[in-house]
Amino acid sequence: MQELLSKLVKKNIVITKEGKVADYIPELDKAKKDALGICILDNDGNIYTAGDWETKFTIQSISKIVTLMLAILDNGEEYVFSKVGMEPSGDPFNSIRKLETSSRKKPYNPMINAGAIAVASMIKGKDAREKFNRVLDFFKKVTEDDSLDVNYKIYCGESETGNKNRAMGYFLKNDGIIEGNVEDALEVYFKQCSIEVNAYTLAKLGLFLANNGRTSSGEQIITQKIATIVKTLMVTCGMYDLSGEIAVRVGIPCKSGVGGGIVGVVPGKLGIGVYGPSLDKKGNSIGGIHILEDLSKELKLSIF
Amino acid sequence: MQELLSKLVKKNIVITKEGKVADYIPELDKAKKDALGICILDNDGNIYTAGDWETKFTIQSISKIVTLMLAILDNGEEYVFSKVGMEPSGDPFNSIRKLETSSRKKPYNPMINAGAIAVASMIKGKDAREKFNRVLDFFKKVTEDDSLDVNYKIYCGESETGNKNRAMGYFLKNDGIIEGNVEDALEVYFKQCSIEVNAYTLAKLGLFLANNGRTSSGEQIITQKIATIVKTLMVTCGMYDLSGEIAVRVGIPCKSGVGGGIVGVVPGKLGIGVYGPSLDKKGNSIGGIHILEDLSKELKLSIF
Amino acid sequence: MQELLSKLVKKNIVITKEGKVADYIPELDKAKKDALGICILDNDGNIYTAGDWETKFTIQSISKIVTLMLAILDNGEEYVFSKVGMEPSGDPFNSIRKLETSSRKKPYNPMINAGAIAVASMIKGKDAREKFNRVLDFFKKVTEDDSLDVNYKIYCGESETGNKNRAMGYFLKNDGIIEGNVEDALEVYFKQCSIEVNAYTLAKLGLFLANNGRTSSGEQIITQKIATIVKTLMVTCGMYDLSGEIAVRVGIPCKSGVGGGIVGVVPGKLGIGVYGPSLDKKGNSIGGIHILEDLSKELKLSIF
Amino acid sequence: MQELLSKLVKKNIVITKEGKVADYIPELDKAKKDALGICILDNDGNIYTAGDWETKFTIQSISKIVTLMLAILDNGEEYVFSKVGMEPSGDPFNSIRKLETSSRKKPYNPMINAGAIAVASMIKGKDAREKFNRVLDFFKKVTEDDSLDVNYKIYCGESETGNKNRAMGYFLKNDGIIEGNVEDALEVYFKQCSIEVNAYTLAKLGLFLANNGRTSSGEQIITQKIATIVKTLMVTCGMYDLSGEIAVRVGIPCKSGVGGGIVGVVPGKLGIGVYGPSLDKKGNSIGGIHILEDLSKELKLSIF
Repeated sequence: MQELLSKLVKKNIVITKEGKVADYIPELDKAKKDALGICILDNDGNIYTAGDWETKFTIQSISKIVTLMLAILDNGEEYVFSKVGMEPSGDPFNSIRKLETSSRKKPYNPMINAGAIAVASMIKGKDAREKFNRVLDFFKKVTEDDSLDVNYKIYCGESETGNKNRAMGYFLKNDGIIEGNVEDALEVYFKQCSIEVNAYTLAKLGLFLANNGRTSSGEQIITQKIATIVKTLMVTCGMYDLSGEIAVRVGIPCKSGVGGGIVGVVPGKLGIGVYGPSLDKKGNSIGGIHILEDLSKELKLSIF
Repeated sequence: MQELLSKLVKKNIVITKEGKVADYIPELDKAKKDALGICILDNDGNIYTAGDWETKFTIQSISKIVTLMLAILDNGEEYVFSKVGMEPSGDPFNSIRKLETSSRKKPYNPMINAGAIAVASMIKGKDAREKFNRVLDFFKKVTEDDSLDVNYKIYCGESETGNKNRAMGYFLKNDGIIEGNVEDALEVYFKQCSIEVNAYTLAKLGLFLANNGRTSSGEQIITQKIATIVKTLMVTCGMYDLSGEIAVRVGIPCKSGVGGGIVGVVPGKLGIGVYGPSLDKKGNSIGGIHILEDLSKELKLSIF
Repeated sequence: MQELLSKLVKKNIVITKEGKVADYIPELDKAKKDALGICILDNDGNIYTAGDWETKFTIQSISKIVTLMLAILDNGEEYVFSKVGMEPSGDPFNSIRKLETSSRKKPYNPMINAGAIAVASMIKGKDAREKFNRVLDFFKKVTEDDSLDVNYKIYCGESETGNKNRAMGYFLKNDGIIEGNVEDALEVYFKQCSIEVNAYTLAKLGLFLANNGRTSSGEQIITQKIATIVKTLMVTCGMYDLSGEIAVRVGIPCKSGVGGGIVGVVPGKLGIGVYGPSLDKKGNSIGGIHILEDLSKELKLSIF
Repeated sequence: MQELLSKLVKKNIVITKEGKVADYIPELDKAKKDALGICILDNDGNIYTAGDWETKFTIQSISKIVTLMLAILDNGEEYVFSKVGMEPSGDPFNSIRKLETSSRKKPYNPMINAGAIAVASMIKGKDAREKFNRVLDFFKKVTEDDSLDVNYKIYCGESETGNKNRAMGYFLKNDGIIEGNVEDALEVYFKQCSIEVNAYTLAKLGLFLANNGRTSSGEQIITQKIATIVKTLMVTCGMYDLSGEIAVRVGIPCKSGVGGGIVGVVPGKLGIGVYGPSLDKKGNSIGGIHILEDLSKELKLSIF
């Protein structure tokens, strides 16, 4: 396995040239374009790694699955999905139009920005600070990693340039999807996106889902039902508007972020974390997708 | 004339039953549904009135033509229309979708909310207070009425419920259409909408445009070119997404507001102010439109 | 006047370089890109001409106002506008999306393709041949020109390449907007677009509308009401999605076609025909628009 | 198993009251609203059945996966997906708008009507008759059932009322997605939708996919890759714009049709055919979905 991973990282570094590092915040564009790394964990406690698996980067959209789990724990499945749908939208992740043109007012799913901001607004807590701290604590528990924290330089950048997300927040408030304070929801959202992780952290998150919500120490933190919901949404909506094609090419639940990370889940077996900040046009790690595709073929990982 | 107006008011009170008074702010719904009044001014100093022409109400969207005039004075025609278009949008006045789906990022015209908020952001001034005071002073000069002021109860209501407008503001900021502070632009916008007027005030505004920007005391406040732009936009976009039909049925430049007012302009001749808070589905005074249609037929006022 | 026209044609030939001759049918692209001509008729029987005013070209979208007049004569205003709206759409002339996304199913107005195809379906006649012949006869009467005919080479091209229009036809049939046979409606539509005219023909059409539906021989062919409807729709929707800006810049009812023609109407006074096959991005004659703008400024023709 | 199926059919007949039988063609609405049946096949040759599993109905949209398999065999994966995408659209199955508003012109996926019509146009054959016969023969081979045929009364109904599909066909022709004759593609499409099946036929189709393209007699008709593509598209797009929710609730590849059928695939194990003509608002068998949801829970069939 170790050997296979090294081979795949080496092979796919080439393709990183065809992508582009995110640069909507100055801090983000400092990532090394040809960085590429992977970490895989299994249930026997094995760790397989290759390339830049220890490099830190911000989790970005991958945080959407973390907040979703906590929001369901806090509010129940029924409430959450009365405010946010479960359908792929067919539009880019930061699109606002469906909120207006669709007959249903709720965001299509929790993986697009509008849906994730709505989910962030549901986290319990007396103010934005307490809400976010609950998200961070939950994420620490899930990954069994107490060192996790926000990259505040990137958080400030997100908050300052996040006017389209702010627009969505007020739109959702107007439609009654967000019931509480919009700026609180945005603060939680911008902060959750700015949590720093590496491929190992993501592999821990992946293994937690692969084991249906049980940590490696055996603690059941979320129900199997919640884990199934999250894994299913990862397949149908996790890779932005390339999700359908990734389902065909890779065939395992994945979620990507514009920081360059992808978390992958092989049900019952493996947690996978990938890092590669060079992105395709949809916002997915271009090297990361290719590694996952190769890996899926070699090890026959597709669930379909 | 006086007699004609009385007759038309009496005749069209019936139709006010088919409309609905705006109620998105509690204060607005206190208007008497069957109120209806008109005031017409000509260049010989005659004043013709009928019905509830002295009743006070908030100017709402009619303020969009006032701010537009000042924004062009402040920034020049070229700058203003580099940020806002001149085309009817075919969508409701509060629609956000065209901002995203259109290849051009600028709002379609200054009469829809998105365009008007962009225009409000262009008013010169060191802060929201100074900006708005300049709008109010300009409006006082145009109407030669020093008593004009904001209805602060309604302003607060607009500001508190204005989340869709706030969403638009941040969207425009994100696209670089609004260059300054979004909250400042929104404060100007919500305040301008909350200025209290009556049918007489609107008739003064109408006569000012009928005379291509000259007040009754003979002062030329805006250029003829600016007056022409405003009158033309009133015809193509002034009556929300009923503008095309109103152009056919009435045929004079008009602008309506959800407070129940309509200002009409008979080029070179008359300024018309109408009040009738019962609105059709598009947001136009239902009695007001019918009075204007009858008046246009009786006096052959259509410019087409 | 003659001198002014010559000067304006000479001056504006330069700008034709910035446009593009229509080429969706091979036959159309044979037009000389720098051709430019104008013809103006007044009620004293004067004819003023300059440049390529005698060159033949196909009428294309300008035919939409001709069929509209006949369809109202055939069916009455109420029926026609129960199937087609009066509002500018804010979309390109060949757009189909509003048919689906709008709550009202009817095409926005008779000047966009969908609306014009619906209008063509309303012409009375036992088959496509009879229907079209009635359109052609009506157009001959209006322009007092018996020599008018179809350019069949272009008609065949329109019909063969007209799959988007065909798509619209079936869409309208599906929604009950077209009640008769779709292929008949399309045949009428493609043929009406292929009628050959020159700037003089268009000036005759313009003068007919300027005189509210009376020919120069004094025959009242349509009611004044119908003439007003057509002139108003020309202002709000006649120049594709540049209509709003043209209303500001030119200020008289105009209708353009991708063959390079524009018809202009100065109410009560002049009929104007312009030819210039080099088109702007919206599909309007680029030289033609500039000539009309200059002319409107020189002679103060704006109705606003 | 037999007992479980009987119990589930009995239990879920109640919910059929809440749906509606398709009635866009008179023939379709003759189905018994409370009919409900299921057939399950496994690799040991067992057949489990309950309720109206022998009732005949038209396959409708389920045929889309049959034509897709043949189109890939005929043209290769690369060609097919150069013309049709793999992404969920987020819109109803018969929506046309994305063809215009999306930057990519190709239909989002082969499961919406536009995509399926494009796929139908790719079937090899010298005319519509030969093309369709190849589809029917392929379907016979896959299901090992020589008796399959078209219900011609329903085919005629489809063809006569299919103007929105016809509109899509011409739109796709206009954009170069359909390369051949539009009417041929539509004839194939309308006929494939009108093939008569019962729950047993669908279970055979399901088992064929569960075994990655191998019939029960052991013949490998399509590659494993093609089978994986089809199963994946069933999960992401197979249940109209309820696919995302069905993936969560049921969790196995499914495809439904407005005739009331659903085919389900439990990879490597089972083929499932369900019949229940009472449909939910999205067009899925309402009883069928509930049976599959119960079955998935009881037997833990979800692939996630």
